[in-house]
Amino acid sequence: MKKIYFAGSIRGGRQDADLYGEMIAFLEKRGCRVLTEHVGSSFLQEEGESTMTEEEIFRRDMAWLSDSDMVVAECTTPSHGVGYELGRARDMSKPVHIFYAPDRGRLSAMLAGDDRFVLHPYLSHEELFEALDKVISGNMGQ
Amino acid sequence: MKKIYFAGSIRGGRQDADLYGEMIAFLEKRGCRVLTEHVGSSFLQEEGESTMTEEEIFRRDMAWLSDSDMVVAECTTPSHGVGYELGRARDMSKPVHIFYAPDRGRLSAMLAGDDRFVLHPYLSHEELFEALDKVISGNMGQ
Repeated sequence: MKKIYFAGSIRGGRQDADLYGEMIAFLEKRGCRVLTEHVGSSFLQEEGESTMTEEEIFRRDMAWLSDSDMVVAECTTPSHGVGYELGRARDMSKPVHIFYAPDRGRLSAMLAGDDRFVLHPYLSHEELFEALDKVISGNMGQ
Repeated sequence: MKKIYFAGSIRGGRQDADLYGEMIAFLEKRGCRVLTEHVGSSFLQEEGESTMTEEEIFRRDMAWLSDSDMVVAECTTPSHGVGYELGRARDMSKPVHIFYAPDRGRLSAMLAGDDRFVLHPYLSHEELFEALDKVISGNMGQ
């Protein structure tokens, strides 16, 4: 079973939380295990998780990142945490797939210019899920 | 002369561009060389630099990051690029100092929980520049 680290904005803004939830549900339905399932929860607000210290969240997430087979990130809403995770994932040589809606903002040059990342710009819901399907079927990118 | 990689949001939003410019001017007045001086320019808008490709921007910034003695980041405005740079800087074992205004947003747990980073929350302009002064005088943190 493929273990996926899904990265999406929490404290950077939760406007895409429902979309993260749909992507995570899609990945799970296709037989993947999403380690960071909480990122798509509508109960998780911008304040973030309240029952853990910052250090506990950090250590848990880094352990998951290290344990994952692949990183899938939705990068339309700017987020320090997601950027940090992608930088660390790169240095761990993990396959990284970045999804973003170019009509809602411009992707950082640090992500767009890094040739280790596979970029998936999408202009519709259908386009996003078709690309995500290909990624987990192993038919696209790394 | 201390070489500083200053990290601030570009495509994530330019609302703090003037503050970045003040921090960069302060560092330069104190004898530092700021490699990423353009981050504080009021001419640089959210679209980013237009005369270079994404790959050129990425390669230049990574060369600067690698060449720097220290990273100073202003992390109040969420940014994928800044988060990415901090993740890479950590893996390069660079000293990293993070400034942020907690009354304007909550810092990512990935930054707040990483004990390799030195955090400088500030509630006023004076507090920010006093802390920045201590950082470059070598009286604080790493």
